[in-house]
Amino acid sequence: MTDSPPTSSLTSFLEVASDHPFPIQNLPYGVFTPPETTVPRVGVAIGDQVLDLATLNNEGVFDVPELQNERPFAQPTLNDFMALGPSAWSAVRSRLQALLRADTAELRDAASLRNRVLHPRADVSLRLPVDIGDYTDFYSSKQHATNVGTMFRGAENALKDNWVHLPVGYHGRASSVLLSGQDVRRPCGQTRPDADAPPVYGPTQLLDFELETGFFVGEGNELGTPLSIDEADDQIFGMVLVNDWSARDIQGWEYEPLGPFLGKSFATTISPWVVPMAALEPFRVAGPTQDPEPLDYLQADGDAAYDVTLEVDLETPSMTSPHTVCRSNTKHLYWTMRQQLAHHTVNGCNARPGDLLASGTISGPTEDSYGSMLELSWRGEEPVSLPGDETRSFLEDGDRVIMRAYAQADDYRVGFGTADGRVLPASCA
Amino acid sequence: MTDSPPTSSLTSFLEVASDHPFPIQNLPYGVFTPPETTVPRVGVAIGDQVLDLATLNNEGVFDVPELQNERPFAQPTLNDFMALGPSAWSAVRSRLQALLRADTAELRDAASLRNRVLHPRADVSLRLPVDIGDYTDFYSSKQHATNVGTMFRGAENALKDNWVHLPVGYHGRASSVLLSGQDVRRPCGQTRPDADAPPVYGPTQLLDFELETGFFVGEGNELGTPLSIDEADDQIFGMVLVNDWSARDIQGWEYEPLGPFLGKSFATTISPWVVPMAALEPFRVAGPTQDPEPLDYLQADGDAAYDVTLEVDLETPSMTSPHTVCRSNTKHLYWTMRQQLAHHTVNGCNARPGDLLASGTISGPTEDSYGSMLELSWRGEEPVSLPGDETRSFLEDGDRVIMRAYAQADDYRVGFGTADGRVLPASCA
Repeated sequence: MTDSPPTSSLTSFLEVASDHPFPIQNLPYGVFTPPETTVPRVGVAIGDQVLDLATLNNEGVFDVPELQNERPFAQPTLNDFMALGPSAWSAVRSRLQALLRADTAELRDAASLRNRVLHPRADVSLRLPVDIGDYTDFYSSKQHATNVGTMFRGAENALKDNWVHLPVGYHGRASSVLLSGQDVRRPCGQTRPDADAPPVYGPTQLLDFELETGFFVGEGNELGTPLSIDEADDQIFGMVLVNDWSARDIQGWEYEPLGPFLGKSFATTISPWVVPMAALEPFRVAGPTQDPEPLDYLQADGDAAYDVTLEVDLETPSMTSPHTVCRSNTKHLYWTMRQQLAHHTVNGCNARPGDLLASGTISGPTEDSYGSMLELSWRGEEPVSLPGDETRSFLEDGDRVIMRAYAQADDYRVGFGTADGRVLPASCA
Repeated sequence: MTDSPPTSSLTSFLEVASDHPFPIQNLPYGVFTPPETTVPRVGVAIGDQVLDLATLNNEGVFDVPELQNERPFAQPTLNDFMALGPSAWSAVRSRLQALLRADTAELRDAASLRNRVLHPRADVSLRLPVDIGDYTDFYSSKQHATNVGTMFRGAENALKDNWVHLPVGYHGRASSVLLSGQDVRRPCGQTRPDADAPPVYGPTQLLDFELETGFFVGEGNELGTPLSIDEADDQIFGMVLVNDWSARDIQGWEYEPLGPFLGKSFATTISPWVVPMAALEPFRVAGPTQDPEPLDYLQADGDAAYDVTLEVDLETPSMTSPHTVCRSNTKHLYWTMRQQLAHHTVNGCNARPGDLLASGTISGPTEDSYGSMLELSWRGEEPVSLPGDETRSFLEDGDRVIMRAYAQADDYRVGFGTADGRVLPASCA
């Protein structure tokens, strides 16, 4: 690892500001529908434009064997491309960077082709980029698990015995994973606000966000054939931001003994652009020391944490611009993505292309780095101060939550798209 | 409700014995590939034959508007047909029963058509009939929850407070839902057999089955728009048997606080034929009294339990024929399927066509009706006696578990296909 942030002299013929999230070093994948058509296809973001990979492939610009037989870009999801595996991803990325370089004339000087394959971001509509077969949510921030455990079980009993030995996780709900920008209706459900009275039906009173990242699986594995941790590292296609919206009162009443269910399943928002792991490779860092040492199947050489800055902005109906309520970093995660995927398959469970594995709430060591309102307001005991004398303990109707993320190099940044959603009022029966 | 079992004079021109699982009163749906082709399609089982609905529809025998525009039977899954909703299901079923009646000449006397649309079951290959978007597993047998709670927390604290107020459930793993007949490899994983020593890696020592039924969702609901309990009742397409294979030691170490994960996700076996709810309608009965009375969104008029006999057979490598180790009944379930589906969507979570909702282990009130080895052997304290002086506390390599189910009328039975699987030895790294 280098001690200083990575630098790069790689530049595109398309002008991209140095603080733009989508420089040539990033090239995140998404699915979009161009103007004047209804056929979605795979694209990459470059600056404020979207490059149409389906049309590029039709033009024969890729000399990648896997792309000749399959048509992975002329699809409404990234799944087929994810299923091609690391060598195809690498070949496509190299070719795209070569095509977009400032010193390559091939696309730069081909005005007609450029018109057909490059669209202003504002002119296209984005779609949920992946058909998510299974969505798994982990619980991999030690600070978050400690905070929540302290609030609900006391400081002495905050972490369960298993937490330091394996990446605790659970199956989430795939059907309600939403594209950024979609509003989220405050859920109704059953809660028991008074432990001495029967439960009641109504809107959640404790609506929350959870700041997470997630990754998508590439080829995956056959049932009964676990991925080693090194194989797992190669099977991580790319990352998105994840807002794991949570209704704390519904969750608190339902979760024993089988875990979170309706307190989570009403909505999970992801960012639209999948940042390839190759773009994040320069930002690998050492994660927290793992003590006790994990079992062999969870051990591998080399750094596997990532230095990605995370921010959560909140905008209430009375505010004129968003206010940052949390600053965190993925490097705080105790369990790495390759450990999560190796653990997930150790029992033979098959991961499929496009499966989403999320980190769990990423809370840092300081109070302003906690990744949920539950922690930021410490269960409402210390409401969060906002501009204009407003405060918040949990989310109110009309509140908008915007998550951002980026890895910062000397002269560029690899940004994530935002995970953005506004709370609509409940409509309980 | 009638007091005596339902009877029927409906008979098919195809001879079906009165104890056969698939009479004309049943007509369960599956997906099969006929001999001499590789194109899967939807069929129904009638006696020992399979009727090809895709070919029948091509012949124009269905006068059902939804089938003209769509081709729901020329598909590798039932999802498109499930999505058409109750009126289409009802129209297709009526037409099929009319076509197969002994006193209808249309198909009976059309030798050429019969040859093309009817195949001996032994000549076709069956497939997993549904693309399962999300799989949810409930915990709806009070006896099972009480048994497990008693073993792990003591009799006083067996049921958590929430259990009698809502159908407790959790998200399961969709990728590893398997068709009956597929072998199941004993999973490897992390356990902590000695609480005073570090956890270890290796094959599960406590492999178990769980006797369950499951149902598939029809049209489902839009995100943010819950199904009322009456709507939920109409959206249940049909039922299958479910063996929710479990590794008790992996589960016991991992499950706090987020619930079951790798202890379950290595395999879930379902029976191949989806029994339509219309076939089970004559077998509706009152379920257990629900006390306390559930909240309004979980209340509806009329019986919603089903009198379906369940059996689990075990065949060890040294046995020459299977031995029944459990006899139970779906009528023992405390929470009904319509309550499960209404609860699942009460927070706005969207159910999609083909989602699978399973019951949880169905244990009856007597010791021989417990639906898992954990309960039958009471955690190994009372091993189950088998023929030939064998005993079992949990499953051993080579053991085969066969689940059967049927609803019995006076002169016919509505049977389920079997959920059948054999345990392969582990192959841990």
